Amino acid sequence: MAKEITNREENYALWYNNLVVKADLAENSSVRGCMVIKPYGYAIWEKIQRTLDEMFKETGHVNAYFPLFIPKSFLSKEAEHVEGFAKECAVVTHHRLMNDPGGKGVVVDPEAKLEEELIIRPTSETIIWNTYKNWIKSYRDLPVLCNQWANVVRWEMRTRLFLRTAEFLWQEGHTAHATQQEAVEETERMVNVYASFARDWMAMPVLVGSKTPSERFAGALDTLCIEALMQDGKALQAGTSHFLGQNFAKAFDVQFAGKEGKLEYVWATSWGVSTRLIGALIMAHSDNSGLVLPPKLAPLQVILVPIYKGSEELTQLAEYLQPVKKALEAKGITVKLDDRDNVRSGFKFAEWEMKGVPVRIAAGPRDLQQETLEVARRDTFEKQSVPKEGIADYIAQLLVTIQDNIYKKALDFREAHTFTIDSYPEFKTRIEDGGFFLCHWDGTPETEAKIKEETKATIRCIPAGAPPEPGTCMVTGKPSAQRVVFARAY
Amino acid sequence: MAKEITNREENYALWYNNLVVKADLAENSSVRGCMVIKPYGYAIWEKIQRTLDEMFKETGHVNAYFPLFIPKSFLSKEAEHVEGFAKECAVVTHHRLMNDPGGKGVVVDPEAKLEEELIIRPTSETIIWNTYKNWIKSYRDLPVLCNQWANVVRWEMRTRLFLRTAEFLWQEGHTAHATQQEAVEETERMVNVYASFARDWMAMPVLVGSKTPSERFAGALDTLCIEALMQDGKALQAGTSHFLGQNFAKAFDVQFAGKEGKLEYVWATSWGVSTRLIGALIMAHSDNSGLVLPPKLAPLQVILVPIYKGSEELTQLAEYLQPVKKALEAKGITVKLDDRDNVRSGFKFAEWEMKGVPVRIAAGPRDLQQETLEVARRDTFEKQSVPKEGIADYIAQLLVTIQDNIYKKALDFREAHTFTIDSYPEFKTRIEDGGFFLCHWDGTPETEAKIKEETKATIRCIPAGAPPEPGTCMVTGKPSAQRVVFARAY
Repeated sequence: MAKEITNREENYALWYNNLVVKADLAENSSVRGCMVIKPYGYAIWEKIQRTLDEMFKETGHVNAYFPLFIPKSFLSKEAEHVEGFAKECAVVTHHRLMNDPGGKGVVVDPEAKLEEELIIRPTSETIIWNTYKNWIKSYRDLPVLCNQWANVVRWEMRTRLFLRTAEFLWQEGHTAHATQQEAVEETERMVNVYASFARDWMAMPVLVGSKTPSERFAGALDTLCIEALMQDGKALQAGTSHFLGQNFAKAFDVQFAGKEGKLEYVWATSWGVSTRLIGALIMAHSDNSGLVLPPKLAPLQVILVPIYKGSEELTQLAEYLQPVKKALEAKGITVKLDDRDNVRSGFKFAEWEMKGVPVRIAAGPRDLQQETLEVARRDTFEKQSVPKEGIADYIAQLLVTIQDNIYKKALDFREAHTFTIDSYPEFKTRIEDGGFFLCHWDGTPETEAKIKEETKATIRCIPAGAPPEPGTCMVTGKPSAQRVVFARAY
Repeated sequence: MAKEITNREENYALWYNNLVVKADLAENSSVRGCMVIKPYGYAIWEKIQRTLDEMFKETGHVNAYFPLFIPKSFLSKEAEHVEGFAKECAVVTHHRLMNDPGGKGVVVDPEAKLEEELIIRPTSETIIWNTYKNWIKSYRDLPVLCNQWANVVRWEMRTRLFLRTAEFLWQEGHTAHATQQEAVEETERMVNVYASFARDWMAMPVLVGSKTPSERFAGALDTLCIEALMQDGKALQAGTSHFLGQNFAKAFDVQFAGKEGKLEYVWATSWGVSTRLIGALIMAHSDNSGLVLPPKLAPLQVILVPIYKGSEELTQLAEYLQPVKKALEAKGITVKLDDRDNVRSGFKFAEWEMKGVPVRIAAGPRDLQQETLEVARRDTFEKQSVPKEGIADYIAQLLVTIQDNIYKKALDFREAHTFTIDSYPEFKTRIEDGGFFLCHWDGTPETEAKIKEETKATIRCIPAGAPPEPGTCMVTGKPSAQRVVFARAY
């Protein structure tokens, strides 16, 4: 396998795209903006899904499923929501095809026009709150803590595999509460679930904070988010959790009788992460040899490669490696023996490096004699000769070390690319090199818009739990209560 | 909770619908023909999904994800396929809404018409084979063994919760093979996976066989199926596995180079089950008190109910039941303590019966004194006083017994309603009472159509592995090689 991807330093966007395709994660389909998630990429999504699903259940949530279609009129019910979401979406107008009377193929049957057009859900607040109306009558029906794993469609003009596609897979939690406080707590709980997942599973450090009003979800009173820094110095929003106040309850007239029988509107949250996380995972850790995967999310954690000449040696080495495979499997480590006889070992090495398998164990005739194995780490490329005896314990520990190291590397990178800046001219220059910029801002959408226009940088978040640090806005000199985080973003 | 569902004997269809709603499994949404799968119903689907997914992986399959949208032209590529599927489907014609210039709300933007209409997948053979074209070049790329968990849409006119809905959830396996034999074996392997799952998990006996040509999947050379008998004597097709020959490979020009370099068309299969299985599960076992769930698929296996007067007794009994809960959980049994203080015990009993929880454990003051528990089975309504000591082992065993009993009951029912008939007049009378009818048929679509027209019965399958039993067609007297299975069906 020849060097087949563009260097990260040359063209980061091209490197990313080459990598996604070469590592067999996903590809563009024949449908504009829609991707095919290939088995290897989907296996990562399954690990993400299963882990998050457990975390959601541990925090008291249950799964449900709501319709793919949203009646057009529903979108108009929440005024801000329609502004933010109703524009670029897939619209179903007919429900039947017919044989083309003028030739071959099929055409839309003009008789089968829908009375009301249906929108493919870009997000499900409206259809879900229309349903909750029937579920919620009394305080005893609250809270409702539902999550849905689903596909959604947003008709994006410029798409990129995983990062921005017309159709994508995600989960969307939609909760209903009796009090504002409960809903606010839920919003915070879930953004923290996302932050823990990013840190502990994706080995990706994230900032947690609030969006500014202009960056909020359409219809939310507050949007919390996790923001990660990619290796090109651009920020990526990896998950959001919205406090929706009573907006959707009012739009869909969802009221409950409290303990004293008084009718009140329900408080809402919604929160989601998507297949975009896979894009973040790739961009946070990978290198010019391909994907680097944290062991906890790697579909395959260890690859075994015999280094042989002739079929007899291959048989001997395959036999030598079998007990290693079994011992690793007994520890719950996913492992595969690559005994293909039609490609060279160098090709195999490059292929598994491209696919980001955290550990490679190779064995040649000398290893066989000496009862050793050659263990190579994907994250550092370090190689070591290790006794076969006790290999499973060694590898189990090594996977933990690799997981930690990948996190540490990403954290070091972020720290080295986080800057505290007070001068706007300096900001304008430095923003070109990427990174997170902690700056004072006067809190007005006008200044925010000016900075965005002049530098393409946006406020990624107002950090949560940061100590108050009064200062003056780098642009207007007006007072600021705390620094906010600027970056150019995906 | 008052008796709230229609009796099964009075009106089976209404009984079914009442039950689905009252047991909190699903409900109709505001979108025509689309259901909301409620958390309790979705929890059953999750168990079905997880179990089948493991079975698919054990048989070498991997998951992937393909686009929701299918370009209209793709449907026309396989001639039979378009006849069978292209007719009633959701058609996306536009990709943008705009504010209504004449008033409030939003309207479809006429400027945003798609060049080619997109169909919401009714099944994915076309988009997947269009993708496989790029994946398959050589015999080394085969077999491709992909499965997809997804939503699909078929614009059904008459819908029923779970059994037939416009949108439903399913899995669809799509495999590609180098030889006809491999593909035929795969088709059989997967129908047998479905049959095992139905028997061992759903406690539902099924017949395995082939469809007649007129009942085949559009584009298949052979359709294998599992057929179950519902309690009203109607058959329900619960899963299908299709041998597609080279039809889709030819339609999408998917060829591979064999070992000798010769180009050949690839052989295909596809197979699927859907949320319809939940409908089958309900109709196979449930009764006038509600749902009866086999323990292996029950989201909640045991419910604990304290029988108390006053809050002091409730506290005592809740304490008494806590270690029972822990002991059951330690055995991996899902259990919940119903300590609600706002409804009576009788209400709780009826509610959990409605929801089909396999075992109820109640405890009153006398149990507390005597260190006993009252154990009630949902399948037989038997109640027994059981020592608290060793309760976990007792319940673990009881769940196995219940699973077996539910299966046996369904099998007995099927056997009692399977008839061997040789006279067409008798068939015409007896078919009114429902059941499976083993009859001789001359193998012609004309006779099959005549029987269907005159009796509403269809050939559910030509049983697999049945011993040859030559005879004469009950309608035409022409020769028949074996009996086939007739029934009226869902």
